[in-house]
Amino acid sequence: MTDTIVPEVDDRVQRGVTRIVRASKKASTLMSAASTAEKNAALEAIAQILLDRTEEIIEANAEDIETARNKGIAEGLIDRLTLSAERISNIAGAVREIIALPDPVGDVVLGKVLPNGIRLSQERVPMGVVGAIYEARPNVTVDIASLAIKSGNAVVLRGGSAAKSSNTLLISLLRKAIASVGLPADAIAGIDEFGRDGAKVLMHARDYVDILIPRGGADLISTVVHESIVPVIETGVGNVHMFIDATAPVRMAVDLAVNSKTHRPSVCNSLETLLIHEKAAKRVLPKILERFEQAGVVVHADTDVQELAPEGMKIRRVSRRDWATEYLALEIAVKIVPGLDDAIEHIRAYSSGHTEVIVTNDLAQADSFVAAIDAAAVGVNVSTRFTDGGEFGLGAEVGISTQKLHARGPMGLSALTTTKWIMRGHGQVRN
Amino acid sequence: MTDTIVPEVDDRVQRGVTRIVRASKKASTLMSAASTAEKNAALEAIAQILLDRTEEIIEANAEDIETARNKGIAEGLIDRLTLSAERISNIAGAVREIIALPDPVGDVVLGKVLPNGIRLSQERVPMGVVGAIYEARPNVTVDIASLAIKSGNAVVLRGGSAAKSSNTLLISLLRKAIASVGLPADAIAGIDEFGRDGAKVLMHARDYVDILIPRGGADLISTVVHESIVPVIETGVGNVHMFIDATAPVRMAVDLAVNSKTHRPSVCNSLETLLIHEKAAKRVLPKILERFEQAGVVVHADTDVQELAPEGMKIRRVSRRDWATEYLALEIAVKIVPGLDDAIEHIRAYSSGHTEVIVTNDLAQADSFVAAIDAAAVGVNVSTRFTDGGEFGLGAEVGISTQKLHARGPMGLSALTTTKWIMRGHGQVRN
Repeated sequence: MTDTIVPEVDDRVQRGVTRIVRASKKASTLMSAASTAEKNAALEAIAQILLDRTEEIIEANAEDIETARNKGIAEGLIDRLTLSAERISNIAGAVREIIALPDPVGDVVLGKVLPNGIRLSQERVPMGVVGAIYEARPNVTVDIASLAIKSGNAVVLRGGSAAKSSNTLLISLLRKAIASVGLPADAIAGIDEFGRDGAKVLMHARDYVDILIPRGGADLISTVVHESIVPVIETGVGNVHMFIDATAPVRMAVDLAVNSKTHRPSVCNSLETLLIHEKAAKRVLPKILERFEQAGVVVHADTDVQELAPEGMKIRRVSRRDWATEYLALEIAVKIVPGLDDAIEHIRAYSSGHTEVIVTNDLAQADSFVAAIDAAAVGVNVSTRFTDGGEFGLGAEVGISTQKLHARGPMGLSALTTTKWIMRGHGQVRN
Repeated sequence: MTDTIVPEVDDRVQRGVTRIVRASKKASTLMSAASTAEKNAALEAIAQILLDRTEEIIEANAEDIETARNKGIAEGLIDRLTLSAERISNIAGAVREIIALPDPVGDVVLGKVLPNGIRLSQERVPMGVVGAIYEARPNVTVDIASLAIKSGNAVVLRGGSAAKSSNTLLISLLRKAIASVGLPADAIAGIDEFGRDGAKVLMHARDYVDILIPRGGADLISTVVHESIVPVIETGVGNVHMFIDATAPVRMAVDLAVNSKTHRPSVCNSLETLLIHEKAAKRVLPKILERFEQAGVVVHADTDVQELAPEGMKIRRVSRRDWATEYLALEIAVKIVPGLDDAIEHIRAYSSGHTEVIVTNDLAQADSFVAAIDAAAVGVNVSTRFTDGGEFGLGAEVGISTQKLHARGPMGLSALTTTKWIMRGHGQVRN
């Protein structure tokens, strides 16, 4: 059990977090045996307690907001941090949606009788203990905890310090709720009191924690990926491209580019770089730039793009840095390319492996693009915004994995499970 | 591309390995587009070149054996290192078995039409670049390379230094073979020339290498798990238990315990600790100990077991260390326990999550055991030796995963693949 020892961490933090994850591990064995009915009752108790204690939650949240304002934190971040009665009601509603989802635990993935008569089956079982490290969005606390409970896991939460007061209250309410239906309170635990060093210990607790999910910006995710000894699922960074091919119908190309960039610019499946075939540029680009200008989109590009811009529209000079940037804002990089191969080469160099789309009417080009692009989701003639668990019909989303191991793309509940092979025999030996 | 920089490593090694993995990445895009027929032709060329160049391979191998002998390496390890004409023929035969396996690439895992008309499918695609770090068994070189090629990947191999001469030749022959059918030679590469530091760079080459598979003893696997930034699949450590319950039929219990321990003691699915219900001990244990004595199995246990041993049989005193040991030899730890709960508790404390078996005629006990044990494979009334890709009908085995992420238990070819979501539309935007 030496894996949890992180030399540079204070002994009190080391012991405190280890005590918590050990209790989570113990709770996880009880959770793995819980029936779907019990888990759903726990989720209903969670939804109910959020509604019943809304005022208290808002008060705790107000403390966080005040601290954030005093620290001069940007309004956009404060908005993400804020809980109102309406938002809390939405969060409770989201928990009830998870109740409605099918329980993946117990699904038989594969079953057969071997030639020697052994009945072999591969069955879905909970992962065990799920760790989550995320930024200051208190809704993630309830979201991840509910998904973990539904899939029969225990969860250890490390939220951003800016949401400490909100998260502390939420976690204590969630624990009360699941205990009220007879499930172990320790199936939901927080380690915010131990600060950054607590997160470090969590990332090294390989003996107790089965999977770690970072949710937040690129920096947070990169830190967790590099520091964690616990297996990590990388989520959410989306440097998303769209390539408009020579044969792209003009109106479709314009609508898809505009929808992909402007529908909800702050999320990971929004468009960040638009590539256009030089044969389509004159036809398509002026209309797209006009729509971008109307929507207030800042465009970074070379002078060839400036030439096609509406009069007076200011195009900013693009740099190598722009190609690698996930703006998450009304901002985009645009590039005119000689053809499909150049588009593929550019995407290969800068893609974060999230979502890449081609707009074309040429079947061979579409097939080449789909085959050549190595990403979680590849689209033909669709908005990039469709890469989403809800849109894919997976129900509530654990996140969007941009790694290749275990889960890729939108992750539903089954991403929080693993499988167990079960062999049933009557004394078979191997010869 | 900074992830590949390992500060303590010599610049020459850093650059050398980076150059190789970059070429592997490039080759992987060609491999992912290769047809099943092309990949099978490459495998046939590999089998053929091994047979054609058997003499040369044996000569290169003789150098390794001589070096090993001069270093005083144990005969058991030298046996694993040794290639004879017969063994090379077997290796070529194993490659041809991989030809016969179905190609997982292109399998549609899920397909549906979304309410908005987008045709969504989730399709199996190669992982990309597979890294393998293993010990001095040159057959693993051919084995892993062939599995990687069949599943459309490129592979970077780091074998044990004791097999350097054998591996260098084998890799050059394999590269020649795949190039002869028009696939990129760089789809198979070795980094043995860069020594341990080369392995370090490989473990940090997250931008180029998609998955790392360590194959070898517990120390090697632990090193890779702790040091690698590239996602790892932990394989093979099997501290395997069998619990003989009060109701276990005597003959079945004896046969299963003996087969599990003695059939092939050096492999990961062989039995390491036998737990016996105190109500079964008197009936079953004397017979098992007698058979263990005949087979030359060294038994570690407490005095209660000594009392049931045949006259003159020496039982060694068991220590806490024994419970945690994977002997991989004719050696076993034995413990009499008061009941199922104690057996489960012992297994939870010491299991490596590989294979755990109960021998019982009590249905409720069997069900409790299967539900409570958290391992890749759980058996009822079967030999532990059945946890095996071949036995499970998966074909050639990539390894046996003891982790919960991505793959658990025996891994077939599909463990070397990931999936890609493909969205095909006609201009759908999100509202």
